Amino acid sequence: TQQFDFTNHSHRRHNPLTNTYVLCSPHRAKRPWQGAREEVKKTNLPDYDPKCYLCPGNIRATGDVNPKFDSTFIFTNDYPAVKLDQPDYTEEEESDTLKGRLLKTEGVKGKCFVICFSPNHNLTIPIMTIKELVKVVNTWQKLYNDLQTEALSGDAPYKYLQIFENKGFAMGCSNPHPHGQAWCLDVVPTEVDHELENMGNYHRKYHSHLLGDYIKLELEEKERVVLENDSFIVVVPYWALWPFETLVMSKEHLTSTADFNEKHKTDLASILKKLTTKYDNLFNTSFPYSMGIHQAPLKCSEEEKNASWFHMHFYPPLLRSATVKKFCVGFEMLGEPQRDLTSEQAAARLIELNGDKHFME
Amino acid sequence: TQQFDFTNHSHRRHNPLTNTYVLCSPHRAKRPWQGAREEVKKTNLPDYDPKCYLCPGNIRATGDVNPKFDSTFIFTNDYPAVKLDQPDYTEEEESDTLKGRLLKTEGVKGKCFVICFSPNHNLTIPIMTIKELVKVVNTWQKLYNDLQTEALSGDAPYKYLQIFENKGFAMGCSNPHPHGQAWCLDVVPTEVDHELENMGNYHRKYHSHLLGDYIKLELEEKERVVLENDSFIVVVPYWALWPFETLVMSKEHLTSTADFNEKHKTDLASILKKLTTKYDNLFNTSFPYSMGIHQAPLKCSEEEKNASWFHMHFYPPLLRSATVKKFCVGFEMLGEPQRDLTSEQAAARLIELNGDKHFME
Ligand SMILES: O=P(O)(O)O[C@H]1O[C@H](CO)[C@@H](O)[C@H](O)[C@H]1O
Ligand SMILES: O=P(O)(O)O[C@H]1O[C@H](CO)[C@@H](O)[C@H](O)[C@H]1O
Repeated sequence: TQQFDFTNHSHRRHNPLTNTYVLCSPHRAKRPWQGAREEVKKTNLPDYDPKCYLCPGNIRATGDVNPKFDSTFIFTNDYPAVKLDQPDYTEEEESDTLKGRLLKTEGVKGKCFVICFSPNHNLTIPIMTIKELVKVVNTWQKLYNDLQTEALSGDAPYKYLQIFENKGFAMGCSNPHPHGQAWCLDVVPTEVDHELENMGNYHRKYHSHLLGDYIKLELEEKERVVLENDSFIVVVPYWALWPFETLVMSKEHLTSTADFNEKHKTDLASILKKLTTKYDNLFNTSFPYSMGIHQAPLKCSEEEKNASWFHMHFYPPLLRSATVKKFCVGFEMLGEPQRDLTSEQAAARLIELNGDKHFME
Repeated sequence: TQQFDFTNHSHRRHNPLTNTYVLCSPHRAKRPWQGAREEVKKTNLPDYDPKCYLCPGNIRATGDVNPKFDSTFIFTNDYPAVKLDQPDYTEEEESDTLKGRLLKTEGVKGKCFVICFSPNHNLTIPIMTIKELVKVVNTWQKLYNDLQTEALSGDAPYKYLQIFENKGFAMGCSNPHPHGQAWCLDVVPTEVDHELENMGNYHRKYHSHLLGDYIKLELEEKERVVLENDSFIVVVPYWALWPFETLVMSKEHLTSTADFNEKHKTDLASILKKLTTKYDNLFNTSFPYSMGIHQAPLKCSEEEKNASWFHMHFYPPLLRSATVKKFCVGFEMLGEPQRDLTSEQAAARLIELNGDKHFME
């Protein structure tokens, strides 16, 4: 009888962080690509663009003027998704009316920030120096600490800080000046809430940490480990959805950037530089992705805090080349996330790539 | 004191079908668009394209030749995501090892189909006649019935049939010849499973149907109802994520297309034509979307069958014009789905559009 072969037979993999499944159809990677194969466009951006609203000294859409910053620069988003200044929402309906049962609503307050990684219009993470990247990590840490102080003192209703970066036009980024965002809300967003719940359940059941155990397992199996240093490890998770998705985790139990010492900061800067260099080298292009940090809520129970484990998700859309991406559409939206190549195949490609020398150097 | 205003203040809306939230930031719709505004490309496709692998009489990638079909044509996908012919997967690990706890896997078998809506290379749903569209609905019904017969007799391990269409290059469709797909699996996919669970919970709690109650409520409130005929209703759901997302529901309790009579089929064909005509007229373009049918599993308990309610989701990505789309990226992937304009604002735009005359006519 034929053996079950992960590189040839369809299967579903369970994501223990979100308690959902991914359908993996590895033989499908063999189908001929019928879509377009465009040329790689090598864009040559200037150091400074007088029309960029993120460059130092320039005027933003609202009329505010950026300072002549020479390092990482953070400011409040001019078109924020959430604001502090709005009235409270109170549900008017009784829960036993149809409306009360079916149309549930909550008001959401908060604050949104834009973080320019560097004054330089054309730098991206793989091209920045580790020293410059440490400043970005410092900014993430300081923002977390400051907002937590406000939250704990009762000055602001903050519960969770979502730090993220959309990189590249393919990921809805409309300004190439390297920047990330941070949205701070008075609720824990759905995805984070699910992770905390599942990590909490795991902890209650096994008296150890889901991600701590997962790191042990990955270090034993080795085939999905892309990068590692003293403080962090990068894997293509067993349950990855995006073709070259990765998960960056602290090796010891750090619940948030608040727990970071100087060594952690340098190690994170260094591993992010190597990872994004590998990404750029994969298809010789400035690799698009959305990435972000998952960490402990700003305000939560001790139990929730202990269930948290600092990690970052990288969700890059590219599949076969600089211009052919994976679409999460019909079946993915209506049925279940689906991927073609296996996580192990993706990891093998990322492992062999150079993480120390960028293809543009 | 200021009143809470749904068109100005951020809030989250609960999706009772999936038990998740959408963050709605209506004031954000006011931000100036800084991204590109491309020209609308009016593509003039021929009736027949000798290089199209879906046109009648042409050779497919695998060497098979399409018959000279003159109506809807269905065949087995040449590069299917799932196949019947693969060995069973048996979990080797004990559940008390790290691997057993964290790397959960299931084998998945099934069959994938491609459904050409019409022999004509350049017809889309809004441009097809109701008579032609009834043939598509017939094909969906026959496929469901045939696969159910196989499933119930034990000839095949089928559990769920996911019918869907990816329309337009923006939705990962690589061939403009109008076609949909149908993936039949031996598992109930995650999204469907969540809906069935939540509809089942609702039924146990309130002794009535979630979607039946929702239709009552929408017919009272009216402001989100886009279209209605004897058998079906189309709304922008209260919890919509995509800017112009809609939900098509049977008005009476039909659990699947197996329950459809001739009148239901004509009414579905007719309302789909009107809805997609409105979509095309919104931005004067052939409107991209992913859409699909959610209905009762092919094989399930009586309780699960009764909890099912025939409905279709339309997930269109466009936001402001034929070329500016909503990106579900950073915050959406890491935090929570987010939208700018409210469902009521989207519904108002769709309601006023002509559903009887296509802009190309
Ligand atoms: O099957 P197709 O048309 O080749 O592929 C398309 O639809 C599939 C199902 O939604 C997706 O997984 C693919 O990413 C998309 O390109
Ligand atoms: O805030 P920006 O950069 O204008 O917008 C971008 O990121 C947001 C957060 O992920 C998304 O909601 C938008 O769709 C995307 O275009």
